[in-house]
Amino acid sequence: MTVSKVCQDAAEASAVVTQLTTEQKDRLLLDMASAIEQHQDAIIEANARDVAAAREAGVSATLVDRLTMTERRMAGLTRAIRTIVDLPDPVGQVVNGWTRPNGLLIERVREPLGVVAVIYEARPNVTAEVAALCLKSGNCAVLRGSSMAMETNRAIMAALDTAIAEHPDVPAAAVQLIDDPSREAALELMRAKGYVDLLVPRGGAELIASVEQNATVPTVIDGAGNCHLYIDGTADRDIATAVTVNAKTSRPSVCNAIETLLVHRDLAADWLPGVLDALAEAGVEIRGCAAVREVWPKAVAAREEDWGTEYLDLVLAVRVVADADEAIAHIRRWGTSNAEGIVARDIDIARRFVRQVDSGSVFVNTSTRYSDGGEFGYGVEIGVSTQKLHVRGPMGLEALTTVKNVVWGTGQTRVVA
Amino acid sequence: MTVSKVCQDAAEASAVVTQLTTEQKDRLLLDMASAIEQHQDAIIEANARDVAAAREAGVSATLVDRLTMTERRMAGLTRAIRTIVDLPDPVGQVVNGWTRPNGLLIERVREPLGVVAVIYEARPNVTAEVAALCLKSGNCAVLRGSSMAMETNRAIMAALDTAIAEHPDVPAAAVQLIDDPSREAALELMRAKGYVDLLVPRGGAELIASVEQNATVPTVIDGAGNCHLYIDGTADRDIATAVTVNAKTSRPSVCNAIETLLVHRDLAADWLPGVLDALAEAGVEIRGCAAVREVWPKAVAAREEDWGTEYLDLVLAVRVVADADEAIAHIRRWGTSNAEGIVARDIDIARRFVRQVDSGSVFVNTSTRYSDGGEFGYGVEIGVSTQKLHVRGPMGLEALTTVKNVVWGTGQTRVVA
Repeated sequence: MTVSKVCQDAAEASAVVTQLTTEQKDRLLLDMASAIEQHQDAIIEANARDVAAAREAGVSATLVDRLTMTERRMAGLTRAIRTIVDLPDPVGQVVNGWTRPNGLLIERVREPLGVVAVIYEARPNVTAEVAALCLKSGNCAVLRGSSMAMETNRAIMAALDTAIAEHPDVPAAAVQLIDDPSREAALELMRAKGYVDLLVPRGGAELIASVEQNATVPTVIDGAGNCHLYIDGTADRDIATAVTVNAKTSRPSVCNAIETLLVHRDLAADWLPGVLDALAEAGVEIRGCAAVREVWPKAVAAREEDWGTEYLDLVLAVRVVADADEAIAHIRRWGTSNAEGIVARDIDIARRFVRQVDSGSVFVNTSTRYSDGGEFGYGVEIGVSTQKLHVRGPMGLEALTTVKNVVWGTGQTRVVA
Repeated sequence: MTVSKVCQDAAEASAVVTQLTTEQKDRLLLDMASAIEQHQDAIIEANARDVAAAREAGVSATLVDRLTMTERRMAGLTRAIRTIVDLPDPVGQVVNGWTRPNGLLIERVREPLGVVAVIYEARPNVTAEVAALCLKSGNCAVLRGSSMAMETNRAIMAALDTAIAEHPDVPAAAVQLIDDPSREAALELMRAKGYVDLLVPRGGAELIASVEQNATVPTVIDGAGNCHLYIDGTADRDIATAVTVNAKTSRPSVCNAIETLLVHRDLAADWLPGVLDALAEAGVEIRGCAAVREVWPKAVAAREEDWGTEYLDLVLAVRVVADADEAIAHIRRWGTSNAEGIVARDIDIARRFVRQVDSGSVFVNTSTRYSDGGEFGYGVEIGVSTQKLHVRGPMGLEALTTVKNVVWGTGQTRVVA
């Protein structure tokens, strides 16, 4: 089946899927979770073939790890689907409403977008997670995984299909996997204007650039994360240390890990060397400004481009600043509007940082690593938006909806203006 | 000054403008309204030059009318600005929030977008209206009017500048008019990525197409309005007649006027001929399907392309349908997701129509002509969105904001997953 046909079928099916009740959708999701459990052996077998092929192709250990479906990960996946069942359905929510002087009642009602497409790499659990998020929010899902995970994705899709087939009220095209890993197929999906209501690319810089260049369908960009943590002079030092180490080292390869640490000069002499020792012990390479190297000479000299680099690795740029305003200015200059954090006890400084830092999520006295749909309580995430329109930060069910204006009258007609 | 410089200055100024308090913004808006009143003679004189040049160039009467600033229109403009002052400030609104099991408090807070640009044609009152909407919502405004209204726009901008100059807390670049009516300047604005947070094109199909093709900045499209009105068999006939005539004839050149009337077959014989007589008397040309021509032979035979045409004129396509489902299917096939209406007494039919018609605004027992920011209570509008992402329908202050995630912790760190 061509990608265009997949998208057309999805658009047609969306007339039905958008109208499903919460009960219908929740029953389907529970059956999807059960089906994945029943197909667990087949999925893990298929995954073993993908993993073997990836190893043979010399793929990096990180990528092989992301690709691998263990029983524990399968359990996490079905648990995530059941969490989504327990979440309130955003569809039909009356966001707000009011009555105009002429008696017109205006209601703003949340509705599904229609067709949601996701292009993603490696991690095959995304296949089921995105399907569940899309269905719960009344959308049809078009999934385009990577060739590396194709066998696993097909096995998961087969499980989902058996669940969908048990529900005669749900069209078969409610969830579709694009079975063509070619670049041309991805381009066709990006250009399925009129059929796809939202495309979310989840992947590296190359995929994002291709979507920005080629997409004619509406998109929300899950972009880079050059994340910053600022330690204010008023910070609780233990919290500052714990948050810094967590934000850098707990999973350096993901977008919510920090890449630059900004430290108030009052902490340069006594707090900073200790935390840099701890980071170095955890294998982190430190690239510091002159003031950092004065108090911690082992640091490599940071160059201008370090402030702009998303390492996604055990490397950290560190800079001493005069105050919160200098930290905010640094972030405005170098940040990617993803996630930023501050550790501070002073309430005015914390609140000013929150208001002036222009990012999707701002964390006070906690780790930027919490920028995540699951951690926000969304069950899973469709991605993390780094744009300002439509939604910022982790995208859950609500991000897959739109708000329609419904106007109830009693025969009102407008006077010519 | 180049367009890029204008946008860079706006982005720099937005660091200040986004942080203004409601009191600061409201005082500025009141002074802007007063300044426009004080500059009224200069504005009307400048407008007279624009109007004379437009007449000389043989511009259509409709366009000359849109271009003309009368004392009454000036009064409407300053009234609109004062209405915006009275509206609640969306900035700082806590949209929702919750506490996670680990104690993290997540707050979702409304914030300005930053820099909002509008490309518009003819109507010079947009200059002041958009400036007021942008400032009230904490955004810098970049305005690009048409060459036809340049003298008027400059005179309005001069008035706004005197008001801004009286407020030392407001940067001069808070509102800027691009003084270059060339196509190149518009293209430069569309491509000012990283500086412009939202571009709204207000104009004809050619402008929209150019933005869709060339813009690299985020946009919300104010697109076509092939609007439909469906008269159900259960409709109150007097309301049906009044709403039909109002929706077609009160201002046929605007996007919220209807282009197709869909009539339940139960009304074909006795109600339809009367309303078509009334429309014809008001100068409307009727293009009907076979069933329409049977009961009202004066109708021109509608061709397939009539269902897809936005006439923006005294022409109406009319089709008899079997029921609400056929009307909904017709609208799904031909609609432009702008504004649609139904006249019906049956509550189930009305509610089904509302849920299944996929448009920005759906009107029940009232005219689609109410699809308008002023009529919704937004004071004025920045445009009417025909897309689903970010905002649907009339765009007021809220459409110029984004929601930031603020996460308050007490030292929480994330366990490696």
